[in-house]
Amino acid sequence: MFLAKVIGTVWSSVKWDELGGIKLLLVRPYSLADLGGKPAEKAPDHDGVVCADVLGAGEGEDVVIAYGHAARVAISEMLPDGAKPNVPIDAAVVAIVDRYAVGESE
Amino acid sequence: MFLAKVIGTVWSSVKWDELGGIKLLLVRPYSLADLGGKPAEKAPDHDGVVCADVLGAGEGEDVVIAYGHAARVAISEMLPDGAKPNVPIDAAVVAIVDRYAVGESE
Amino acid sequence: MFLAKVIGTVWSSVKWDELGGIKLLLVRPYSLADLGGKPAEKAPDHDGVVCADVLGAGEGEDVVIAYGHAARVAISEMLPDGAKPNVPIDAAVVAIVDRYAVGESE
Amino acid sequence: MFLAKVIGTVWSSVKWDELGGIKLLLVRPYSLADLGGKPAEKAPDHDGVVCADVLGAGEGEDVVIAYGHAARVAISEMLPDGAKPNVPIDAAVVAIVDRYAVGESE
Amino acid sequence: MFLAKVIGTVWSSVKWDELGGIKLLLVRPYSLADLGGKPAEKAPDHDGVVCADVLGAGEGEDVVIAYGHAARVAISEMLPDGAKPNVPIDAAVVAIVDRYAVGESE
Repeated sequence: MFLAKVIGTVWSSVKWDELGGIKLLLVRPYSLADLGGKPAEKAPDHDGVVCADVLGAGEGEDVVIAYGHAARVAISEMLPDGAKPNVPIDAAVVAIVDRYAVGESE
Repeated sequence: MFLAKVIGTVWSSVKWDELGGIKLLLVRPYSLADLGGKPAEKAPDHDGVVCADVLGAGEGEDVVIAYGHAARVAISEMLPDGAKPNVPIDAAVVAIVDRYAVGESE
Repeated sequence: MFLAKVIGTVWSSVKWDELGGIKLLLVRPYSLADLGGKPAEKAPDHDGVVCADVLGAGEGEDVVIAYGHAARVAISEMLPDGAKPNVPIDAAVVAIVDRYAVGESE
Repeated sequence: MFLAKVIGTVWSSVKWDELGGIKLLLVRPYSLADLGGKPAEKAPDHDGVVCADVLGAGEGEDVVIAYGHAARVAISEMLPDGAKPNVPIDAAVVAIVDRYAVGESE
Repeated sequence: MFLAKVIGTVWSSVKWDELGGIKLLLVRPYSLADLGGKPAEKAPDHDGVVCADVLGAGEGEDVVIAYGHAARVAISEMLPDGAKPNVPIDAAVVAIVDRYAVGESE
């Protein structure tokens, strides 16, 4: 998993039925420099990551993103109609971050 | 998942039967700099990504790409003959993008 | 898997039920330079990695991190109530490191 | 998936039985610069990728490589004795490329 | 998969039971420059990769590493007691390399 900030949204009308009702967010992963108190390098060469969200993460919030099976489990268990293990997404918000701390040993 | 632009096509006659009728596209992932309004860095060192498409994405269109099981689910559910969970692809277009927005908090 | 040092913690109140009781750690992966005795490059552009822990790894300790199914197996088998194969995490501590050695052939 | 050129071969006598008869190839992934007509950056820092092949790809040929389950499906379905879903490989040639084109919109 | 050299060992007493008896190795992935005869760039920013081994790879030997399900299959099938598909590792040695060759077309 990785720590990221929600920076935007993606809209699509041509997509899989299973994606209906699932919001697609653009997120910016935090780099280790961001975490460690150094001036933030915004990693301009980093791919633009898109992830599914059903927790209601808003723009500017910090989130934890998981990939793969974990992302599909997260989305499936949160939707009203239960079991959708085959939703065609590979990244999802699994937690909205209240706070994070990097210790003195760093 | 990541946001990408369709830039080309790959043709192959020596391939798995399961790939017959599935178009193979070349895509260019957007970098965070591309999304944020800075001059686009075209990430020349980035691997040339190939993905399967059955949504009909055309060259120059923006798409959302998923990897792994999500890609196979996407391809399987869209094909006329239904269940092909074992198609040997690991990346596919899961949405054609109408619009994306990066907020002011960035 | 990769070798990393525990550098911090993430707290979240909005998350999946399955994540209750599982600690989320921030870790800094070791680079090959760190291992080989050269001055450490702290890889400031590296994504901030978040991983689940039920082994009780403390800040400053060295750990081995696994991704994907391996991470879910690790977390599932360690929790009191046994089988939780669908916990929505994709990275976990699988070992707390006593010692590592890089040989003379390097 | 990604586009790559076959550049060499790996020989091993100490390996899993399931790998007997499967050729292990060294491939060089194409970068976006290679695709776009710019002078090729050979990405010297890129890991040396090894992939399984049962399609008969020869040195110098362009191929499409898939990772993970897709790779095992590809290898399993091509071998004479059918079902070998548990072959311990994570990358395989899924298509030998006749031609690829990058459009004018790039 | 990727080509790597064994450079060290990791010892841990706090780990999963399933990892008992499985050696954890530190490996240095070969870069394309290493393969192609150019002066080796040791990729100091590369993460320190840890992989499981039951083939008996020694320090300084070249190996092929596979990730994910392939790694678990490799470890499971080699251990005396057979079926351990849920061992919490995501990388393993699947072949010890006798020789590799990069062709003239490169």
